[in-house]
Amino acid sequence: MNKIDVCLSPALLQYANPCKNSSVVVVDILRATSSMVAGIGSGIKHIKPVEDAVICSNFKQKGYVTAGERNGEKIKDFDIGNSPYEFMDKSLHNKKVAMTTTNGTKAINSVYDCEEIIIGAFLNIKAVVKYILFHSKDILVLCAGWKNRFNIEDTLFAGALVDQLHNKYEIASDAALSACELYRSQKEDLQTIMSKASHSKRLSRLSQKKDLEFCFKFNQFNVVPKLDKTSGVIY
Amino acid sequence: MNKIDVCLSPALLQYANPCKNSSVVVVDILRATSSMVAGIGSGIKHIKPVEDAVICSNFKQKGYVTAGERNGEKIKDFDIGNSPYEFMDKSLHNKKVAMTTTNGTKAINSVYDCEEIIIGAFLNIKAVVKYILFHSKDILVLCAGWKNRFNIEDTLFAGALVDQLHNKYEIASDAALSACELYRSQKEDLQTIMSKASHSKRLSRLSQKKDLEFCFKFNQFNVVPKLDKTSGVIY
Repeated sequence: MNKIDVCLSPALLQYANPCKNSSVVVVDILRATSSMVAGIGSGIKHIKPVEDAVICSNFKQKGYVTAGERNGEKIKDFDIGNSPYEFMDKSLHNKKVAMTTTNGTKAINSVYDCEEIIIGAFLNIKAVVKYILFHSKDILVLCAGWKNRFNIEDTLFAGALVDQLHNKYEIASDAALSACELYRSQKEDLQTIMSKASHSKRLSRLSQKKDLEFCFKFNQFNVVPKLDKTSGVIY
Repeated sequence: MNKIDVCLSPALLQYANPCKNSSVVVVDILRATSSMVAGIGSGIKHIKPVEDAVICSNFKQKGYVTAGERNGEKIKDFDIGNSPYEFMDKSLHNKKVAMTTTNGTKAINSVYDCEEIIIGAFLNIKAVVKYILFHSKDILVLCAGWKNRFNIEDTLFAGALVDQLHNKYEIASDAALSACELYRSQKEDLQTIMSKASHSKRLSRLSQKKDLEFCFKFNQFNVVPKLDKTSGVIY
């Protein structure tokens, strides 16, 4: 039986079970991986995740649209921020996007030596589950968190994934078990628990509240974006 | 309003809110802090937490009873292991105990620059709550975990503490919020969730199963053991 594990923060990755033969599902619900899914699902050609804002900015000269935020705010002189609505804009159709965020792009780049990296969000969870069941590999869900801290929205997504796979996958750790139980106890009303979450307080502007609502919609896109190891882009 | 925060692993302590003015409640339900509470509650004079097994062993020459485990098993040539029943033995009355464990003593020694360190367990949770409410300081619950990994039993204790204090304390993080919700969803039947936990699989011998059951009993001891900063002992 394949296993599903959950790592609650990039800072805990070094203590997790080795993931050499695993598919790693990276999740940053608010908002990096939700925006990636929305963007790829809406026709963006590919997304280059970049940790450093200056390096990301330089991609503009290579024909990239630059996207990014720090602490929830758009970076000055970047083309767009980190809203899924910006990533769905028609003007980005078939464009290449270079993207840097506080946690999500960092989490993606913190994983090494695994079988593959998949981009997960509530927006594409059904597609991710279908993909996982088809390929039947061990799974590690990596929660991007907030500056290495635990956060609730990524954990709820991890729990939802464990919940949907628990009949066919062995739960590999207390983190996976707890995420699953937390999701089950909250799944009828994710908005209430999210109203108490730390990130909701950060995203307090009206446009951000719209993002927050959208990022908790299930199955809006039938895509499973993956990181191409050679080129380092998500497509 | 005072705040209550939860740190889910010693490895995350560096990313937590500063705890300079906080009381830190260290918890290692299976079994270090449960045994400490049981021991102090049963008349042990004081307990010296020591990280290194060889250093701990040397305390025997200073008149200490040596207690310790590695990976759940008693250390060879030590007087006792890490069972709360051993710590409650009448022969230890008024004795000094030097103790080393895989996670608990390490967690205690990982905290620095805080107001005070309190030893928490289900066995003394009511006394801890009473103490906290009386002294009204900010609280950080530090879960010892398992080799820096998240574990469920320490998180359930943290959640129980948040649950009991939530009317008078502000919940300071998603970790505290999630621990509380996890505890609330499981509190009617902690044994079932614990039967699926990783640590239960480690403590599989009959005597250890007895420990496991005992460590989930509430309010067996009306004591609040604390670390004396000067001497480094728990009394």
